[in-house]
Amino acid sequence: MSELFHVGISGARGKMGRAVDTVLDARSDVMVAARFDWGETPDLSRCDVVIDFSTAEASVALATACAAAGGPALVIGSTGFSPEQEAVLAGAADTIAIVRSGNFSLGVNILIGLVEHAALRLDARDWDIEITEAHHRRKVDSPSGTALMLGEAAANGRGHDLTDLRSPPYDGVAEPRETGKIGFSSIRAGGIVGEHTVLFASEDEVLTLSHSAIDRSLFAKGAVAAAAWVRTRRPGLYDMQDVLGFRQA
Amino acid sequence: MSELFHVGISGARGKMGRAVDTVLDARSDVMVAARFDWGETPDLSRCDVVIDFSTAEASVALATACAAAGGPALVIGSTGFSPEQEAVLAGAADTIAIVRSGNFSLGVNILIGLVEHAALRLDARDWDIEITEAHHRRKVDSPSGTALMLGEAAANGRGHDLTDLRSPPYDGVAEPRETGKIGFSSIRAGGIVGEHTVLFASEDEVLTLSHSAIDRSLFAKGAVAAAAWVRTRRPGLYDMQDVLGFRQA
Amino acid sequence: MSELFHVGISGARGKMGRAVDTVLDARSDVMVAARFDWGETPDLSRCDVVIDFSTAEASVALATACAAAGGPALVIGSTGFSPEQEAVLAGAADTIAIVRSGNFSLGVNILIGLVEHAALRLDARDWDIEITEAHHRRKVDSPSGTALMLGEAAANGRGHDLTDLRSPPYDGVAEPRETGKIGFSSIRAGGIVGEHTVLFASEDEVLTLSHSAIDRSLFAKGAVAAAAWVRTRRPGLYDMQDVLGFRQA
Amino acid sequence: MSELFHVGISGARGKMGRAVDTVLDARSDVMVAARFDWGETPDLSRCDVVIDFSTAEASVALATACAAAGGPALVIGSTGFSPEQEAVLAGAADTIAIVRSGNFSLGVNILIGLVEHAALRLDARDWDIEITEAHHRRKVDSPSGTALMLGEAAANGRGHDLTDLRSPPYDGVAEPRETGKIGFSSIRAGGIVGEHTVLFASEDEVLTLSHSAIDRSLFAKGAVAAAAWVRTRRPGLYDMQDVLGFRQA
Repeated sequence: MSELFHVGISGARGKMGRAVDTVLDARSDVMVAARFDWGETPDLSRCDVVIDFSTAEASVALATACAAAGGPALVIGSTGFSPEQEAVLAGAADTIAIVRSGNFSLGVNILIGLVEHAALRLDARDWDIEITEAHHRRKVDSPSGTALMLGEAAANGRGHDLTDLRSPPYDGVAEPRETGKIGFSSIRAGGIVGEHTVLFASEDEVLTLSHSAIDRSLFAKGAVAAAAWVRTRRPGLYDMQDVLGFRQA
Repeated sequence: MSELFHVGISGARGKMGRAVDTVLDARSDVMVAARFDWGETPDLSRCDVVIDFSTAEASVALATACAAAGGPALVIGSTGFSPEQEAVLAGAADTIAIVRSGNFSLGVNILIGLVEHAALRLDARDWDIEITEAHHRRKVDSPSGTALMLGEAAANGRGHDLTDLRSPPYDGVAEPRETGKIGFSSIRAGGIVGEHTVLFASEDEVLTLSHSAIDRSLFAKGAVAAAAWVRTRRPGLYDMQDVLGFRQA
Repeated sequence: MSELFHVGISGARGKMGRAVDTVLDARSDVMVAARFDWGETPDLSRCDVVIDFSTAEASVALATACAAAGGPALVIGSTGFSPEQEAVLAGAADTIAIVRSGNFSLGVNILIGLVEHAALRLDARDWDIEITEAHHRRKVDSPSGTALMLGEAAANGRGHDLTDLRSPPYDGVAEPRETGKIGFSSIRAGGIVGEHTVLFASEDEVLTLSHSAIDRSLFAKGAVAAAAWVRTRRPGLYDMQDVLGFRQA
Repeated sequence: MSELFHVGISGARGKMGRAVDTVLDARSDVMVAARFDWGETPDLSRCDVVIDFSTAEASVALATACAAAGGPALVIGSTGFSPEQEAVLAGAADTIAIVRSGNFSLGVNILIGLVEHAALRLDARDWDIEITEAHHRRKVDSPSGTALMLGEAAANGRGHDLTDLRSPPYDGVAEPRETGKIGFSSIRAGGIVGEHTVLFASEDEVLTLSHSAIDRSLFAKGAVAAAAWVRTRRPGLYDMQDVLGFRQA
């Protein structure tokens, strides 16, 4: 923490970009070296790491430019990448260190581990899994990226891909629930910051694991922690489980 | 409570029919005078009131037969009536007293009143309403009849019909939530007895009103209370708000 | 709303005072005419109304001064008044209009009405009431003032004073729960903004009514709404139920 | 599972004893060889294992008798043992295999592991822990034995004994919450079967891990699973973490 490091903010005028700016402002070990949005050409050579909450398209262009220049490292919080875009990010990670995550909070990343552990222990023939999330009225995608991350953790715990187990929302008259499936439901209302719940229910008992964000600055703080971590890493594609030391190298 | 009264059970071999039987068995002021299912011809003349958890079709036939005979009174817990079937029930109620409800619990019927009251007070431009329900894995219809009753109460509080305000489940990428709509979501898992939540959220606060059934016998007890109430009523179509005295005559 | 009005802020350097300042700053129909703290002598003649989040002692002194000068009106959010101090406030309200409340949020004030209504309907012999609240780790008084307001509403619904029904926290081995009592429990953890839950439970079902604050600015906004309301009232002691029109004059 | 085994029920006329009887009745691989209560002298030689939900005193006498006879194995669900009584049980376990637990549900025993894991990861300087539980109105001890088990798991995750960290209920005006302490609160109402929640809260987020029992038969089923497991074990004192294979030998 002793040496000053230089951070660029991509998507600087967006909600998360401004939150990152505020968090960086409060730290004495960081200097903001660049702020930019899609269509602007930043001087990347002045940055040790860039924190990027923009769009899939902008993030891919940024990663390509950083890889071509041999740096800086990247923290990517954009979502909605196509498989082709994912491949470009993976290619860039041969040259630079990239942390990419759908959720930078410590609590959610702990929760992912707990969900995988519980799903591994609780027999799919007896225990149904349902994932619910609630967000503010302006959020347009459902279920949330974090809900899907939790679903993947649950599916992994059961030795499957989520695509095999994901069930559409219950609506209308249908067959009884299929054993082993993972259900999703979403709430959109008011200014709810972000809540995620993973419920495991058998015939006689319910286990509920949930996370609630109190303040949006939470995610900006996590992204900044990822930036502090990634700037000294070797090239590679990392996620918050790596940053938090939850996964062995 | 001093005089013995005679009850018939329609749908006697179903889950609710058997639960009603157990509740009646524990009361000293009631005698079960008939137990029957669809296709059987009971001796209705021996009954003061029939408690009916069968199907829409069976209930309509039963109501028609009771009206033709000038009695007994009816408590109907079947669901899924078409508008034509509803009209037949209303016609039968010119001759006999009928209590009909999607949920016989005291708590849910209190909740309906609270939801209407809150919806009346909380401006639809500021407060979004979301209704969620959770039931066991064998329940095939979504959302539950009770969730729809709660949605109607919320819509009524805002001077609308639920059909104008009901929003389908959030799934995929869509427009932001529409102001004034009422969202629904369902969970199906394990042996959950029955949970309903009505959430009102503004930008800064959330009000949550919810009901949880501990034991399924709850609904049978409420139906028996309705039977004790209805046997001395004039002809008419009543619901649990009448039985519980929440609505003025 | 057309005419500018002038507001003084008492306890201006405290957390709530600063939140009020921010809310006023965003309104075009208000001018902040004075900011002061305990020990300072404001020019009250420039204020139409003073919003006061200070201490019981400071609030009593302020109310006395305002009453002596024949104004301005007051919105008091301080808590912890002794019976003697309450009498002084009541005396001041012979001369000036005062709104006093332990919680200025719309949601909590709706909840108070719902709790009283439910308590009135749900027989104390069958339904136990438990009130729980959760706040950040720095809150020193338990249960919260709002939890006590909710407890009073529940007790009123049952025709009692809360002092007759309030039960201390369960801890250790004791007699079984006494019928008719109202239990309280508190959680203190992290940065929780403020959550209150009133639970009614019978042998077979649970009704839960709860409120959660998303953002602390909620309370400042409510106090400002009270200020806009009170500046044109006759002398008297009002609360948020009056401001929100929930109580007939 | 092919071979029939013989089970004795100690505390056979109690609530849990009768629940165990019902569960055993539904299994084809078990025969009930003895049912007895305190003061009765069963023929233990006919039992492979005894399931005991009685009192601390009766359990100690039973364990002593079984050890003296070289069998049968024991599953003990009684609670409230003094240190001296614990020592007698440990002595008996030199000769016979004993499973002892405060909670026989799979879900609670999974939860214990998750809580320890989360407490290990979440820095006590940033994250406060609060444990809450809710039970029916007849439960006389608070907090529940299971809440204390969860508290021990949390304390262990932080390298401490619960006795060092346990905080009394918040009530009245006190100092702000002490860093690192674990708070407990209890609800007693109606017929609530049993709910336990462990909350971890930092300044910006909340992680909640909870368990809810749908049906009391849950605990009887777990005790019977423990009986099937323990009858082939070497002498020793085991708990449900052993039965479920969560702990290495």
